[in-house]
Amino acid sequence: MPRIYNFSSGPAILPLEVLEEAQKELVDYKGSGMSIMEMSHRGKIYDAVHQEARANLRELLNLPEDFDVLFLQGGASMQFATIPMNFLGQGQTADYVNSGSWGIAAIKQAKLIGNVNVCADCEKEIPTRVPTQAELKLTPGAAYFHYTTNETISGAQWKTLPKTDAPMVADMSSDILSCPRDMAPFSLVYAGAQKNLGPSGVTLVLIRKSFAERSNKALPVIFRYPTHIEAESLYNTPPCFGIYVLMLVTRWVKKTGLERLYKQNTDKAAALYKVIDASGFYRGTAVKEFRSDMNVTFRLPTEELEDAFCAAAKKAGLDGLKGHRSVGGLRASIYNAFPVEGVRALADFMKEFERTHG
Amino acid sequence: MPRIYNFSSGPAILPLEVLEEAQKELVDYKGSGMSIMEMSHRGKIYDAVHQEARANLRELLNLPEDFDVLFLQGGASMQFATIPMNFLGQGQTADYVNSGSWGIAAIKQAKLIGNVNVCADCEKEIPTRVPTQAELKLTPGAAYFHYTTNETISGAQWKTLPKTDAPMVADMSSDILSCPRDMAPFSLVYAGAQKNLGPSGVTLVLIRKSFAERSNKALPVIFRYPTHIEAESLYNTPPCFGIYVLMLVTRWVKKTGLERLYKQNTDKAAALYKVIDASGFYRGTAVKEFRSDMNVTFRLPTEELEDAFCAAAKKAGLDGLKGHRSVGGLRASIYNAFPVEGVRALADFMKEFERTHG
Repeated sequence: MPRIYNFSSGPAILPLEVLEEAQKELVDYKGSGMSIMEMSHRGKIYDAVHQEARANLRELLNLPEDFDVLFLQGGASMQFATIPMNFLGQGQTADYVNSGSWGIAAIKQAKLIGNVNVCADCEKEIPTRVPTQAELKLTPGAAYFHYTTNETISGAQWKTLPKTDAPMVADMSSDILSCPRDMAPFSLVYAGAQKNLGPSGVTLVLIRKSFAERSNKALPVIFRYPTHIEAESLYNTPPCFGIYVLMLVTRWVKKTGLERLYKQNTDKAAALYKVIDASGFYRGTAVKEFRSDMNVTFRLPTEELEDAFCAAAKKAGLDGLKGHRSVGGLRASIYNAFPVEGVRALADFMKEFERTHG
Repeated sequence: MPRIYNFSSGPAILPLEVLEEAQKELVDYKGSGMSIMEMSHRGKIYDAVHQEARANLRELLNLPEDFDVLFLQGGASMQFATIPMNFLGQGQTADYVNSGSWGIAAIKQAKLIGNVNVCADCEKEIPTRVPTQAELKLTPGAAYFHYTTNETISGAQWKTLPKTDAPMVADMSSDILSCPRDMAPFSLVYAGAQKNLGPSGVTLVLIRKSFAERSNKALPVIFRYPTHIEAESLYNTPPCFGIYVLMLVTRWVKKTGLERLYKQNTDKAAALYKVIDASGFYRGTAVKEFRSDMNVTFRLPTEELEDAFCAAAKKAGLDGLKGHRSVGGLRASIYNAFPVEGVRALADFMKEFERTHG
């Protein structure tokens, strides 16, 4: 079978050369006589992988010195709980933006821990969008401010940095490393790996050590960020294979260049939005100025046509285009590793489908 | 490089045929045109893997109907926290056995949550052992009883089932699926995958649904066992690749046969203990009746000799024999996937080393 164009929203497509390298050394890692999956996480061979992954991310993200790079488990969903457990004490309030399915998911868990101010809410708006700065009703002295940089399901993305005096916390699961970004304004950033970084099962956390020091000391040790900072993410056995693949992905990003990937990403998205806008048949679901470069969401005139579109696309080797089950419609997830030719193929397919079904 | 004999305590050796199959289909999973790492966890292809892993474990462990099979993240260390968070309410007491490094690790986290009765304590005893039934000072009406079936570091293993009226909770990280076992007495069993089940990053939890219903309803949703029971471990994105390799391992266990593996495991351990007992040079560190079939721990007359032993063994293709850094000495971890020939090679090496250094 030739490789298909996989528009899956996550777990998502990985660079072919990363997969091929992982395949080549899967049984015998660099002449060690063992798989990377079979090695002690405290041995020299795995440690070199672990440290390279950290160093590559530090370099690619141009991280300020005060930041640490952690590899944790449990995905963004675990962070929804552990962030307020660590940083939302009694008598404090945290500001949360509700800009879609992931924003509200974070809010729901934080409310189980402490006092949450939903400082802006456009979750239910259609067309979908994120709030403007003017809409943010911020709490003076908030414990932190939380937002989701890209809403994978609604296809809406922040194009500017929100302004707040509180420590800034961001869920970047679906757009981390998709563009150059100044990390200085942030205190904690997290991302499930399975979109732009690697396979599922690894959670990247970037955290300022000075912020981590504020964490609740009464928590079980595994939930405290300082635990993982001190242990360099080796407090307990890490997901070694996932971190290894993530390391290979960071090598690939370095080789390709983050600026070039960013240009490619915006070009890829623009090519699809252009087809949508030139048509009376397709309808983009996000407000134009907030359209995501990672997840291009659109509708067809009827659900029957959407089903027919998905089925025909799949036959043409374009898979994973069905929108999230909670909202329906179509979604093309085109993360870093998604090839330009695949976007061209989808754009051509869309035009042809409109010609025959419009 | 030929495959070495890898005595690593975890992440540990995997069956060669499992690694070879994972390698073969790493880039293109069964003609899908995608890697298993790149697929939606809610799609049909991954779901077949997920469900087969659950079904194989249910069959191999002969699980009573009331049990569910969960694949979580965070390892045993996460369970140390989430078990008391779910099941140790205010005014309740849980009985914990302290039989070694993992017993005390679980106890420390539980004490941060609630009232813990250390019902037996032999953690610091040398030679190492687990307690007898007569030593257990149980709490009437305890919320649950917790013990560690095999202490990986001390090399001591329970050979009988403790008796208690409380719901029984066990950390089986290092000996799950190493022998046939009646699961009916248990309410919750957990195991990090990286010893007998697969790569690190997957935590197996076996839980009675009737026990799960007692869990604390105020917790963040991700920490509640009923969340994962209802969602069949798809509440959030699971560590798909790790579960896939675990599924391949369960196929291998089914093909090999659990009774046969158990016989092999006890034979492998007996062969090493025989060399130790026949020698005035090697000294086993566990009390004979509690010697582990999974982790054979022993000392040499001096630390210098231990270092020399490790270095020479490594040159002979016998790697990972250094004992845990907290206790020193030697440790041969010989889980299910460790081959009989590797044990023979170590036994021969031990005799030869004694002859030349004794």
